[in-house]
Amino acid sequence: MLPTEPRRLVILTEGYGIDDAKTATGVIRYGSDDIVAVLDSTMVGRNVSESLPGHDIPFVGRLSDALDRPVRPDGLLLGIAPTGGKLPPAWRSIILEAIDAGLDIHSGLHQFLAEDPEFAGAAARTGSRLIDYRQPPDRMETTLGRRHLPGKRVILTVGTDSAIGKMSVALELVAAGRRDGASAVMVPTGQTGMMIEGWGIAVDRLISDFTNGTVEWLVEQGEARGDWVFIEGQGSIDHPAYSAVTMGLIHGGTPHAMVLVHKPGLAEHDFDHLPDVSFPIAPLVPFIEMHERIAELIAPSKVVAIALNTSLYASDDEARALVAAIRKETGLPTDDIVRFGADGLWSAIRDAVEALPWL
Amino acid sequence: MLPTEPRRLVILTEGYGIDDAKTATGVIRYGSDDIVAVLDSTMVGRNVSESLPGHDIPFVGRLSDALDRPVRPDGLLLGIAPTGGKLPPAWRSIILEAIDAGLDIHSGLHQFLAEDPEFAGAAARTGSRLIDYRQPPDRMETTLGRRHLPGKRVILTVGTDSAIGKMSVALELVAAGRRDGASAVMVPTGQTGMMIEGWGIAVDRLISDFTNGTVEWLVEQGEARGDWVFIEGQGSIDHPAYSAVTMGLIHGGTPHAMVLVHKPGLAEHDFDHLPDVSFPIAPLVPFIEMHERIAELIAPSKVVAIALNTSLYASDDEARALVAAIRKETGLPTDDIVRFGADGLWSAIRDAVEALPWL
Repeated sequence: MLPTEPRRLVILTEGYGIDDAKTATGVIRYGSDDIVAVLDSTMVGRNVSESLPGHDIPFVGRLSDALDRPVRPDGLLLGIAPTGGKLPPAWRSIILEAIDAGLDIHSGLHQFLAEDPEFAGAAARTGSRLIDYRQPPDRMETTLGRRHLPGKRVILTVGTDSAIGKMSVALELVAAGRRDGASAVMVPTGQTGMMIEGWGIAVDRLISDFTNGTVEWLVEQGEARGDWVFIEGQGSIDHPAYSAVTMGLIHGGTPHAMVLVHKPGLAEHDFDHLPDVSFPIAPLVPFIEMHERIAELIAPSKVVAIALNTSLYASDDEARALVAAIRKETGLPTDDIVRFGADGLWSAIRDAVEALPWL
Repeated sequence: MLPTEPRRLVILTEGYGIDDAKTATGVIRYGSDDIVAVLDSTMVGRNVSESLPGHDIPFVGRLSDALDRPVRPDGLLLGIAPTGGKLPPAWRSIILEAIDAGLDIHSGLHQFLAEDPEFAGAAARTGSRLIDYRQPPDRMETTLGRRHLPGKRVILTVGTDSAIGKMSVALELVAAGRRDGASAVMVPTGQTGMMIEGWGIAVDRLISDFTNGTVEWLVEQGEARGDWVFIEGQGSIDHPAYSAVTMGLIHGGTPHAMVLVHKPGLAEHDFDHLPDVSFPIAPLVPFIEMHERIAELIAPSKVVAIALNTSLYASDDEARALVAAIRKETGLPTDDIVRFGADGLWSAIRDAVEALPWL
């Protein structure tokens, strides 16, 4: 069980800053926690609001500086999820210091803190909880072939790459749906989404034989929580490292529709591959068709909208021009909903989904 | 490390017979072990040769009957791999009896025997080894984007369903290649292949985030063992439960070519799904194209041959007519190589692979 009580967190990004700290930025932007400080000795004197406007959070250089803040934190949240999910070695002593101070540790790493004898021993002494969000459920069941309940609309965010905003798009669409009076919910499938929502499963940690089956089960829980079920996507169907995870989400989740997240300006998949190879980002129109063909191997689905991440373009005018160009290229409702607001795209998605013949 | 010394095995299929015991039949047909007996109290008085001609192995009703045979066994091999990989409850007492008799236990279940306190305690007393073939490697690495070595030809068996003979096809093609003087090797990706070959990884047990990356690494080991590298396939791209595993093999293995295994007469995927749903077997021609399109999301590949499993047809004439019909339908070299021999299809595959533009 994940903790659900309100938290006062220090977020650890030591050595990584904030712009590439996907877990940190997700929790800061979308979480309901009180963020006391971000701990990164390379950023001392700066403020998170420089990168994330509206979030007035200081960087501190030492954990003790965060403990001295007017609101004392009760948890340290590891703010990055590096490729492979391993603990940066320099973080070990900081985590031990936090445990000694009685803080809970919130971790989305593959390397489980609770299975580390040094961390577990320290936590046993101080009463700190070591919360490993990627710990998989104690469940080994394959797919049942379950159908979605009547009245439920299941939508998966997919992408042209990993780490370009599939969770943010799902969260923004859920918020827009709620503003519109819809019973909307996100199904968290990664550690950051779980930290924000307080439930879910890190699908990339599942045993591959049970990936489809566990996603099916997770979506069933989403249907119990709302009528418009937005599954947080992971990876991409053409990601050299993560495509098996993406396949499990498409075939286990059997979404009625998909929203394709795309980051213009990104030329290739960005991950820790060999230096002499590259994996280009796919052209949109055939990539949309491929998603629909892969999905219909199990159940029909349609890409109903494009959600752009235009963060590589500083000017709003440039971003708007990109939105218009990609709307024309794909013939689909298109917007950057993080930048320009999600209400318009939500309405377009809602209407497109309601018109699907397989609902 | 897997044991590689010659073994004298009792194979346990209690309650399952032999025809549906995929692990048992694979080890009997393709393994180099001395099979002393098959233990199944529902089959006493019968002989394995009734199902698998040429394999004169008695069924016995009790373990003690197998221990009394002229050649005393040194291991009990669990001969089934049920959906979900759980231990049939009735088998527990038989396994304990085998441990008490000092036999090693060879298991391909997801439920690890070595982690079971009762089995582990008994084995500690008697010195029996509990060998869990599905135990994943202690390795958490994502894909590197490694290219195959020059001169290597990497071929993956794919299928229109799970459990229709992808491993047998790979083994038969390796044997045919060796008869032709080629340095051919199978890369085992499932527990039965591992039991036969003495190495490999059960890919369906991997953490999904590391599936592609571990398959890439496993194929590298295959390239060190031979020039014609046949990767044992798993599942199918349209299998509701196992497609994520299949995707990891296609994108992690980046095969130069694929051989599609198909079982004529099978109408739908056969697995433990809800009774009111069905998942039909795909039509061949678009399914071949889908494999090539999915593969080329990462690296180009071509389906170069069809390997039929005509076991649902008793008459050789019927089987030959099916081979001819499907050769015509697909325009690809086609044969049932288990039934009619693999030399012809091997030659066709060899020539087709050598002509691939991306080699």
